[in-house]
Amino acid sequence: MAAARESEKKQEEEQVVNPWEVSAKGKIDYDKLIDRFGCQRLDEGLISRLHRLTSRPPHVFLRRGVFFAHRYFPSFLLSITETTNERVVSFCFVLFCFVLCCSDFAEILDAYERGDKFYLYTGRGPSSEALHLGHLIPFMFTKYLQDAFKVPLIIQLTDDEKFLWKNLTIEESQRLARENAKDIIACGFDISKTFIFTDFNYVGGSFYKNMLEVAKRVTYNQAVGIFGFTGEDHIGKVSFPPVQAVPSFPSSFPHLFSGKENLRCLIPCAIDQDPYFRMTRDVAPRIGCHKPALIESLFFPALQGETGKMSASDPNSAIYVTDSAKEIKNKVNKHAFSGGQDSIEKHRQLGANLEVDIPIKYLTFFLEDDVELEHIKKEYGEGRMLTGEVKQRLVEVLTELVERHRRARASVTEEMVNAFMAIRPLPHMFD
Amino acid sequence: MAAARESEKKQEEEQVVNPWEVSAKGKIDYDKLIDRFGCQRLDEGLISRLHRLTSRPPHVFLRRGVFFAHRYFPSFLLSITETTNERVVSFCFVLFCFVLCCSDFAEILDAYERGDKFYLYTGRGPSSEALHLGHLIPFMFTKYLQDAFKVPLIIQLTDDEKFLWKNLTIEESQRLARENAKDIIACGFDISKTFIFTDFNYVGGSFYKNMLEVAKRVTYNQAVGIFGFTGEDHIGKVSFPPVQAVPSFPSSFPHLFSGKENLRCLIPCAIDQDPYFRMTRDVAPRIGCHKPALIESLFFPALQGETGKMSASDPNSAIYVTDSAKEIKNKVNKHAFSGGQDSIEKHRQLGANLEVDIPIKYLTFFLEDDVELEHIKKEYGEGRMLTGEVKQRLVEVLTELVERHRRARASVTEEMVNAFMAIRPLPHMFD
Repeated sequence: MAAARESEKKQEEEQVVNPWEVSAKGKIDYDKLIDRFGCQRLDEGLISRLHRLTSRPPHVFLRRGVFFAHRYFPSFLLSITETTNERVVSFCFVLFCFVLCCSDFAEILDAYERGDKFYLYTGRGPSSEALHLGHLIPFMFTKYLQDAFKVPLIIQLTDDEKFLWKNLTIEESQRLARENAKDIIACGFDISKTFIFTDFNYVGGSFYKNMLEVAKRVTYNQAVGIFGFTGEDHIGKVSFPPVQAVPSFPSSFPHLFSGKENLRCLIPCAIDQDPYFRMTRDVAPRIGCHKPALIESLFFPALQGETGKMSASDPNSAIYVTDSAKEIKNKVNKHAFSGGQDSIEKHRQLGANLEVDIPIKYLTFFLEDDVELEHIKKEYGEGRMLTGEVKQRLVEVLTELVERHRRARASVTEEMVNAFMAIRPLPHMFD
Repeated sequence: MAAARESEKKQEEEQVVNPWEVSAKGKIDYDKLIDRFGCQRLDEGLISRLHRLTSRPPHVFLRRGVFFAHRYFPSFLLSITETTNERVVSFCFVLFCFVLCCSDFAEILDAYERGDKFYLYTGRGPSSEALHLGHLIPFMFTKYLQDAFKVPLIIQLTDDEKFLWKNLTIEESQRLARENAKDIIACGFDISKTFIFTDFNYVGGSFYKNMLEVAKRVTYNQAVGIFGFTGEDHIGKVSFPPVQAVPSFPSSFPHLFSGKENLRCLIPCAIDQDPYFRMTRDVAPRIGCHKPALIESLFFPALQGETGKMSASDPNSAIYVTDSAKEIKNKVNKHAFSGGQDSIEKHRQLGANLEVDIPIKYLTFFLEDDVELEHIKKEYGEGRMLTGEVKQRLVEVLTELVERHRRARASVTEEMVNAFMAIRPLPHMFD
């Protein structure tokens, strides 16, 4: 019993997920994750309801993922997480997963069914010039949600966060934010429904007021519990969480939501951003606001496999949207971890281990044809298809995706960036 | 020896001065204060130099105060103050004192003599509707400096600070800021050289960038050392110090100082604001900025005497600019601590103790006629003048001052407040 607890503790220590660090060793116990996060497995009915309400098939990321249904984030969870600096999360066995705050998401769907709209809020910390495929996923999914629900979208580029956390000047953070905005715009967002902003350009006015309404309601000890700050961290870090919290409140955007301060907010984001919104959801009712609902994705795995981590310092750990066809081919063939057997004979006999196979995981994200994916999984899993053939198909899929993105990005002008970032009303945002 | 140390420690503990609390018991040892603050007594030559440079007699606050000359604030002081949460300061024996950062103030005068101008920066936390005389003093002195040097002035109203520290809504903090602005404008500032702003209206843009440049360079531990924060303080408090720091940097005001980013800054303020600027001066060179120079005033004493404290909860502890002539008379006669003797006979024989006499302290601030003041002090100190007579003269002086202020304030319109607060260039700010 004591040994079990010891091993459990060790496992937790080996998994670190916060907005600035993601690392894990070994397999994850998802039941434990559910337990810790106060989740329950996603109600399939919610996905069908989404299908019915939007008259669109659920996105491939919804259809294929393994889902956790966040029942709710009660405030007692805040006090629990205060005592554990780092939370248990990983990206092993599951390719990708969305955590749905069911009760709030259901409320959003209830309201939507009654004719009440909501708005979407997502964002990115612009720490690097080139995005990799993992970075694109929340934006691809957000575009689906925007198209499906026909609702406005707020995209925050936290250039201030990256200035505070990285060895970057303000000017360089701002430059990266604009470059990243081009990749985001290339995902196809509707300019008549989308407002993109950078913190350095936008913080002030109602946004600043809301920042302080939040900051006044989070003690330093709570922030330490949620974010793991230490006394040697600078106060810029301690000041930042409210900046990411307040786009959850419509009153932060008077040019968009004046008179609509009661609008609900749905946040699609990667699960490493969860601490910000756990804090936000705790504060929201205390300042008379709705809690934002969340749809959270787990991490896109590194080419090296489920225990690896995509790293900016290792370009071979990820496919970048700037990679050439040759680079993609090279990376997949050389670095994508295979679940195939060591010899052809053994492979024909045992088949591939799909649970650890990166080409299969990547195809699960990006190969849209359900029939073909099932065929590949069956053939490969039963040894009739070889790793080389699966990798070849993945190279084709990724090359097409990246080429399509590159073409779209090339057509994004500085004027378009300015237009998306203009502080303006969106008269047709709910049409 | 051990007993002496014990008593010294006790004395320190009994004295608390930070931007949110001022309290003291017993007499102060100013030599110790100088020692702790790394000051030296003010060079009289500096005051005469000021006289010569500005062709004006030094202000009565300069002529009559007891001065400390801050040699410099080396960064090692920061680490010393980190180990002492509360600093030794008091307002006993000295009515009022300016702490001059000599080396930097001298640099400002050097530069001024060469034809280089500087700008003034002061401010107020708008926590109450009515100002008392102590609140007016920094503004009266700042007006003298603006007139003498013909330089621009920035006045910050920290409505955000008061929202964070007090049980006030944002709207109420903003309302108080506007009301206080009227009292400040009534002090006679030159609108062609003065920009008044409230944080809730102004934070953003270059100001926000500078806030983060500062925040990135102060650790939480350092902030605890300087400001005495605890883990139960909310993160709004921890976030605030950079807000008060950055008006020290011209680049925070591009509408005023574009192309003049190297302009020096002189800050007249009460000494309880010192922690903010000790932090600012530590950071300044690390972000390529001049350290602001400081002229700091000690506190204006309460009517109850040198060991009392002016308190918002006790209206009889201070004269407010809204007090009627009758209230002033009543407060002075009933509450002003007298250094006179218990009986007329004893008073005629021994004279008054001017060191503790509040009417004399107040006259030292506000009776401009040097000859009359000296006469009263001599006659009163030698027992020929009685407390009642001195109080009567004080009532006249204060009534006139308060009446003058009331008339000036009554003529301040909302349009004038808007005009002072307009974000605009000041084309003649150095004329």
